[in-house]
Order: sequence, then C-alpha cells, then structure tokens
Amino acid sequence: MIPMDMKAVYRYIDQHSQDFIHDLSELVKQPSVSAKGEGLHECAEKVEYMLQETGFSTRQLPEVDGNPVVYGELKSKHSKKTLLFYDHYDVQPPEPLDEWRFDAFSGKIHDGRVYGRGASDNKGNIVSRIKATEAFLKIIGDVPVNVKFIVEGEEEIGSPHLKSVLEQHKKLFSNDATIWEFGGTNYEGRPEIYLGLKGVLSVELRAKGASRDAHSANAPLIPNPAWRLIWALNTMKNNDDRILIPGFYESVQQLTKEELQLLKELPLEERKIKKTFGLKEFLHGRTGIEAKRELLFSPTCTINGFLTGYTGPRSKTVLPNEAMVKLDFRLVSNQKPDNIFKKLVKHLKEKGFSDIRTIQYGSTEPTKTPATDPFVEVVATAAEKVYMKTAVVYPTSAGSGPMHLFRNMLECPVVSAGCSHADAKGHAPNENITIDGFIKGTKFMATIMNDLA
Amino acid sequence: MIPMDMKAVYRYIDQHSQDFIHDLSELVKQPSVSAKGEGLHECAEKVEYMLQETGFSTRQLPEVDGNPVVYGELKSKHSKKTLLFYDHYDVQPPEPLDEWRFDAFSGKIHDGRVYGRGASDNKGNIVSRIKATEAFLKIIGDVPVNVKFIVEGEEEIGSPHLKSVLEQHKKLFSNDATIWEFGGTNYEGRPEIYLGLKGVLSVELRAKGASRDAHSANAPLIPNPAWRLIWALNTMKNNDDRILIPGFYESVQQLTKEELQLLKELPLEERKIKKTFGLKEFLHGRTGIEAKRELLFSPTCTINGFLTGYTGPRSKTVLPNEAMVKLDFRLVSNQKPDNIFKKLVKHLKEKGFSDIRTIQYGSTEPTKTPATDPFVEVVATAAEKVYMKTAVVYPTSAGSGPMHLFRNMLECPVVSAGCSHADAKGHAPNENITIDGFIKGTKFMATIMNDLA
Repeated sequence: MIPMDMKAVYRYIDQHSQDFIHDLSELVKQPSVSAKGEGLHECAEKVEYMLQETGFSTRQLPEVDGNPVVYGELKSKHSKKTLLFYDHYDVQPPEPLDEWRFDAFSGKIHDGRVYGRGASDNKGNIVSRIKATEAFLKIIGDVPVNVKFIVEGEEEIGSPHLKSVLEQHKKLFSNDATIWEFGGTNYEGRPEIYLGLKGVLSVELRAKGASRDAHSANAPLIPNPAWRLIWALNTMKNNDDRILIPGFYESVQQLTKEELQLLKELPLEERKIKKTFGLKEFLHGRTGIEAKRELLFSPTCTINGFLTGYTGPRSKTVLPNEAMVKLDFRLVSNQKPDNIFKKLVKHLKEKGFSDIRTIQYGSTEPTKTPATDPFVEVVATAAEKVYMKTAVVYPTSAGSGPMHLFRNMLECPVVSAGCSHADAKGHAPNENITIDGFIKGTKFMATIMNDLA
Repeated sequence: MIPMDMKAVYRYIDQHSQDFIHDLSELVKQPSVSAKGEGLHECAEKVEYMLQETGFSTRQLPEVDGNPVVYGELKSKHSKKTLLFYDHYDVQPPEPLDEWRFDAFSGKIHDGRVYGRGASDNKGNIVSRIKATEAFLKIIGDVPVNVKFIVEGEEEIGSPHLKSVLEQHKKLFSNDATIWEFGGTNYEGRPEIYLGLKGVLSVELRAKGASRDAHSANAPLIPNPAWRLIWALNTMKNNDDRILIPGFYESVQQLTKEELQLLKELPLEERKIKKTFGLKEFLHGRTGIEAKRELLFSPTCTINGFLTGYTGPRSKTVLPNEAMVKLDFRLVSNQKPDNIFKKLVKHLKEKGFSDIRTIQYGSTEPTKTPATDPFVEVVATAAEKVYMKTAVVYPTSAGSGPMHLFRNMLECPVVSAGCSHADAKGHAPNENITIDGFIKGTKFMATIMNDLA
C-alpha cells in the first residue's frame, strides 16, 4: 500500500474542478445516441483521447455490427490489485426536445449544474473516474491500484455485443473489483450504492386475424387479433399482479439474512416517489418493508406498449387484422430469460394461443454481489469518508443491465456507485449533474482506489 | 295508378345512359369528405341543382353545427302515395391514396365502370334515383307517386344531426315508404335488398396510472393502466365471444318464422368472403345457417383500436401512464345503445374498474321492417322484373345506420336497395360502379315508383 495523503488528492480535485467540468461539458456536447446510430464513433474517439491524455494505454475493441468499446488500462507501480470501471458513452434519445430548458446537447453550465443528455447517465461518471485517476498521477505520480476502463456504446440499447466482446477479451478485463456505471446521492444527500440488478426479458406478442382490416360488421365471422391478445395476456397475469405462467417463480429465492437487514435499513422515499408520479398510494397499497421488498426482489411482467387498429379521434368501426403487445419481465435470483421465454411460449400453447407469435428481444440475467463481499465494505466506507453520511446500500437495484456478464465471466465483485443525484432526470428532458455532486463523486472514486489497495 | 308503358321509361333510361353517367362522373369529381369537412357545401349545391333541373322543388335544411341536408319534393298529379329516398352526398376519406388506380376524385370512366370515392357509396344511388324520376317526367309528364329526397352530408360520420333535422321537419318527410341508401347485386348478379340494420354503440375506455410515464423498473409500485384495461376487457367478453355484461342479451329476440325462412334462402358467399379476408374458416368454424344467423342477428363487441406506451421497433422498458381502447357494440332487436352503455358502466364498477373512464361516441338503434310488410313485396317484385333474377332478401343487414329514426319517427316501411355491385369497393381504394349496374338500378328505382302507385 502506497503511503499518501488523500487530502492532497482531494485538494487537487477541488483546485481543478473548473477544468474537469469544462471537459465534461465538452463530452456532453458530443451527441452519441445509440438508438439512432448518431455520433458514436466521434464520442468513442473523445473518450479514448481523454484516457490517453490522462496516461492510459487504450484500444478500441470494435465489433462487426456493434459500436466501438473503448478500453483503457493504467498500471500501478506498486499494487497487484486491479479496479475496473464499467461505463458507457452512448446516451438515450433526447426527445421530447421542446421540454428541454437548454439545448439537449448544449453541455450548458448553469446554476451549479451541467445540463444535457448524458450529463448524468453516463458521461458524468466517465469523466469523474478518469479525473480521479488523474489526481493520483499528478499528486503521487502513480495510481494506488491498476485501473481499467471499459466504456461501451450500446448500453442504452441493451448491450447486444458486450457478451462477445468479453468472451473475446476475457483476460483484458480481469479484475479484483468492478465499479458499475451508475449511482449518486439520494434526496437527503446520502450516497447510494447497489450490489446487483434485476434481469430483464423483453418480448413482443403478435396476433394476426384476416389478411386485411375489415368493417366491424363482419365481427361474427372474422377473428379479432386484439381480443386474442387480451385473452392471452389475461392468462399471464391476474388482477393481483401474480404472474400465472407455470414455473415462473420456481427459481426465485428467499432473501438472505443480510439482504433482509439491508432492506430494513433502506430509506425508501415513499412520499417523494408518490409526488413525482402523482400517486395517492403505491400499487396494492404497498408501503414500508413490503414496498421495498417488492421493488427490489419481485419479478414483474409489464406491458410496455400495445397497438392495434384505429387510435385517432372519436370512433371507427374497424375490425383490425393485427395486434401487438410489448412486454418486459423483470427477473430476480436465478430466473434465466431464455428459460422464462420458453415457459411463456409453452404456456401460451397450452392455453390455446399457439396462433400468437412470440418474439424475444434483448435480455439480461439478474445478478447480485453478496452483501458479505469485502469490496462492499470498501465502497461503503469510502462513501462515508467523502460524504460524511452513512451510505444507503441497496442489496440489488430494481433496474437491469449487463452486470451478470462480469459476475459470471470474470467472477469479480461488482458494486454500482457514482456521482449523480436525486434530481438528475436521467432518460428525461433536462438531464443534469450538479457540480458539487460531480466533484464529491470524483473524490469518492479516488477513495475507493486508495482503499482497495 | 297511372296507366303507362314501363318499356318507354326503360328505353329513355337506356337512350340517356351516357348523359346520366356523365352527370354521375361530375358529381364524383366533387370531393365531399365529411370526416375532414371538405367540399360539403359545394357538393350539396350540386345535388340540389340536379334535383331542381329535374323538376323538384328543393330546400337546404342547414343545421347550426352540421352539414346541409338537401331536401327535394316532386308532387304527382294523380297519386296520393309518397316514396322517400334517403341518400347522402358525403363520402369516406379516400386514403390510402397511393392504392388508387385513378385519382380518387377523377370520376374516371373506364372499362364500363365509373371510378372514384363515392361512385358507389352513395353518389351512384343519388343520381340513379333522380334519373329514374326524370325518365317518368320526360315520358309521361308526371311521376307515378309523390317523390321526396333527403340527401344528408354526415352519414359517413354517424349522422350526428339527422335526428334533430327529422324532429324539426317531421311533416316534410312524411311518406308511405322509404328506399334506403344502399344495395346492389351480389356476385351472381342477383339484386340484394335489406329490411333492417343492426344498431351500434361506439365507446372508448381510458385508464390512467401515474401522472407520467415511468421506467418499468418501478412496476412493483406504480399501477399499469394497460393491465387495468386488459383485465377489464377480459370481464366483458370471453374466449367464446360471449359478452359477459349482465343483461346484455336480455332484449335480444328470437327470429320470426319469416326471418328464419329468409335466412335459409340467403346465399352467403362463404368461399368468396374467406378468400377476400384470407381466412381458412370463419370465427369458431361457423358455416351455413349458423354463420348467417350470427352475422345478421347476433350482437357483437369488437375492439376497434388499442393504444398504450411504446409501439415502435424493438423494445422500450417503459411503464405507460395511460391506455385507451376503442370498442363498438353491434346491437340487435330491442337493444338500446344508451341502455347498453349504462349496463357497461355498471358492470365495470361492479367488477372493481370504476377507475376506468367510459366515453360514449355515436350510436344508432337496431331496426327492421317486418318481412311481411307489403312494401317488401313491392321492392322484391320490382327487382325481379328488372334483373330477371330472384331478389336476395336480407331480413336485416350486419351494418348500421340511422334507419331507426325513420322507422320510429315516421313509422314508414324502409327497404334498402340500390345500384351497386359486389366488387364496388366501398370505403376502400378504387371504389367504382358499373355502368350496367347503374342503368339497371335506375330502371329498378323507376319500377318501384311505378309499382308502389
């Protein structure tokens, strides 16, 4: 372990905050919308350049059909330990554009915040982590641990090529601990860290009736694909939100003692969430520990979209000839997307809906790092040192991502923590990051590097 | 009854067929799309002018918010009997435009047909009926019965103002018999006449969840309005297409002896319909007398459209905050739309779906003229004289319209018959009418006038 003064590192970060913010603003100005294939190579170049400037040796790992993955590596002169940062330079589409206060790719610095798509998700974290490394290099001419970056360009579209990149370059990514892409502070300013993710399985069901739309007068003779979907969906989930696909819950495990304890300590900001979404109460009146347990540990089946027939003003007496519904299943414990998809297909067949076409889109598996893993303690303690508040440790997140690839293939502990904040508006208009949060987050990342060593 | 030679009338019609077709083509060239408020006053003027030219005294009966209703009257010198023609000069929107062989409002005369939106529905019938009157005036200087025309401009949008027009001008519309707007020959060239219509009730159900869309990770806490609609719809109709709203079927009557007989004689062109719609078999394998009975005498509940959330390519993990479904109920016998709507609202409330908003759009009541009414015999016999084939008498139609207003308010027999044909493509691209059918239809109308006298 390198003896060093963390205070000097923190001071460097404070003194250079304007430069860091400037660099972040520049990166936000570069559009990089993976859903539209917009600006991705340019953004990858900028990230690679920022890593090189800092002192990383870098590569781009291009995929045949995918966006380049930026890889950066910086060896410590003294430590054998390796910390890997997983990030992504691609962003969500900025629409609806007219709800943005400043241009979506302005990188506008205003009132202590940087605004723009990607400011929080995930360019703020990319820059913060690179700058934490820079601070060490400038102050002690070394890094406390080996540092690796993997910055992909397809996270917002489900990371379709990340698995093959990891398979091809497994050795490149070997590490002792991984910091995942997201995290920040909650409404009380407490740092939040996440030990896992739910899995997700996205599917589309399509029903077909006649070869063309018909006048609804023909309803007694022509099958209605919309009704087929209604009846099929009704066999999949009941009014109590219990999923009815046989065997759906069979790989769902009980919470561990530690998870239950973390859940109890978790401050779910019920009133704030209800206010944000205009709700009097949560689904089924859930509250307290039940709300938290359901949010983090329950698998779900959600209708994301449904389209059939005439959807304009007033009425049209049409009998549509096709109907489609998009669904996602959030998965937990040992539920595997492929297995759940098979169960769904089998279920529909058994219920008499083999006419309904089932399409599987992206999927990720659920994964968790055990709360007892020593790296969890390292991250939580680092957070407390920087924020002077107890970290909120989520035993898992309600969201999803390709974390399972790292856990399964590299067998490393993975914890998600970052420099965002409760009002960051990720995926929404006016996405932003606070300068204060960004700077604290940079110190937080530096502290993790130091404490892991 | 005026003594006269119908052959002379027929000869006049044959000799002037080119002029008649020209006048029809000109009327088709005038767009009159009620759904878009396009060209309606201009078209009403043209219809009124054609009636005036023929010898009718005319009026326009404008409504505060509605399109003008053209009224025409021509007194017979000898007869006390009155025949009323109900027609409409408005047409369906012509879209999709790129599927038209000729411009949608070209009125193109090609290969023995007149093409264009409205050629068959309903401008062909308007012109045909006026020309039948003209033939009598030219040959005998009189009409065999008093003739009235009511040509409205809102049929294709559900005739929202027709009821108040009839109420305000009840005496104007008094008649002994009414010929409804549609009809023609089937694939075998047999004339088809219709004694009634189903009713229709169009509704929209709307469910609301949060005040904004949420990330689907929040599914355990935030209600999903799409699922609410799925479950609500499932309580309304089961997999066998049995409608589950309590009391829905209570006003549905048994078929009369005559209706059953007509049903047996009805040639349902099953193979042709199946081919048109790309079906191997009809819904629930219906065929023969069962298919005919269901088509004409069963009430239905049809999903016309459903929209919620993300409906673009691939997937999006969104939890939508609103969902809506459009439905129509086809009604029969004594089912009243308002009463069915009340039953629906009550049913949803009782099933726990009082959060779902119910909106009623247009509606019409079912109605039928008894098969035993003497006017049915007049029309059927007239058809056989002109077409030299037995008429196909539909005890009712599977479609809907404001016929009940005439039956209830004017208490007249109403029969639908006209000059269209089996390949007329009403409401679709390449709508057309055959010149032969148009001319025969004109003779058919003349014969009805003569035989009613």
